[in-house]
Amino acid sequence: MSTASKEIEEGFLFQPKFDANGLITAIAQDCQTGQILMVAYMDKEALKLTIETGNAVFYSRSRKKLWKKGEESGHVQKVRKILVDCDQDCLVLKVSVDQGQCHTGHQSCFYRTVSDKEPQRLEFIAEKVYDPNNAYKK
Amino acid sequence: MSTASKEIEEGFLFQPKFDANGLITAIAQDCQTGQILMVAYMDKEALKLTIETGNAVFYSRSRKKLWKKGEESGHVQKVRKILVDCDQDCLVLKVSVDQGQCHTGHQSCFYRTVSDKEPQRLEFIAEKVYDPNNAYKK
Repeated sequence: MSTASKEIEEGFLFQPKFDANGLITAIAQDCQTGQILMVAYMDKEALKLTIETGNAVFYSRSRKKLWKKGEESGHVQKVRKILVDCDQDCLVLKVSVDQGQCHTGHQSCFYRTVSDKEPQRLEFIAEKVYDPNNAYKK
Repeated sequence: MSTASKEIEEGFLFQPKFDANGLITAIAQDCQTGQILMVAYMDKEALKLTIETGNAVFYSRSRKKLWKKGEESGHVQKVRKILVDCDQDCLVLKVSVDQGQCHTGHQSCFYRTVSDKEPQRLEFIAEKVYDPNNAYKK
C-alpha cells in the first residue's frame, strides 16, 4: 500500500474525497434504531455547514443547490456523529429525527424490498408516517 | 409528480436506476446489528449475480471488474434482503456476515468518526477484528 493510501486509511486526518462532480455520498442513519433513512450527496460547503450547524445539509443534484434537510418539510436531521469509511469517499451521518424523512411520507426512503420469489417485483415493508401533501406547501 | 416518477416511487416494479457509468450504489448493512459495513457499487451483472447466488457481488471501480465479495478474503456476505429507495437509485443489502468486512481488518469500513472538537481530525471507534495480512494472500 502506498504511503498516501495508508495515511487515508489509517490516519487521523479527515480528508474527505469528493468525486469529479465535487460530491461525496452521505448516508443518514437513525442513531437510535440503526435504520438507514436516506442516501444523499454533499459538496464541500454542505459538509462544512453540517459540521458547523449540527443539522444535515446536502447538495441537491436535481435542483443543483444546497439543500438544508427539512427547510420545506420541517423534518430536520440532528447530526450526532459523522463517520467516514476507509478510503474517505463516503460518510455515515448518525442522526436524531422526530418525523418521517422521505418526501413520499415514509420514515425511511427504503420502504420497499425486492421480492424473494419474483426479483422484478417490489414489496412494501413500511406504511407512510406522515402526509407529504400537508408537509410540503404547494 | 409525473406518472413516471409516481410509478418509480409508489410502484411494485423493480427498475433500478444505473448511473451514467452503469452503476448503482449498494450499502451493505448487518441484518443482525444494523451496523453499516461498507458502501460499494453494482453494475447490472453484479446485481443479477447477487440475486441469483444470494452472495453479494459488486463492481470494483478501481479494478474495473466484477468483485465477488470474499473471493480473496473468504469474508462473504449472505444477502437476506435487498431494499431500494424511493427513486430506485440506491440499494441496501441486509446481509449476514461472520467475519470482518473491511479490507483494513475492521468489521466495518466506518471505523472512524469526525472529532467533535476538531473537525479536521478523526477518532478511531473500532479495533481491527482480523489480520488482513493473513486474509489476503500476497
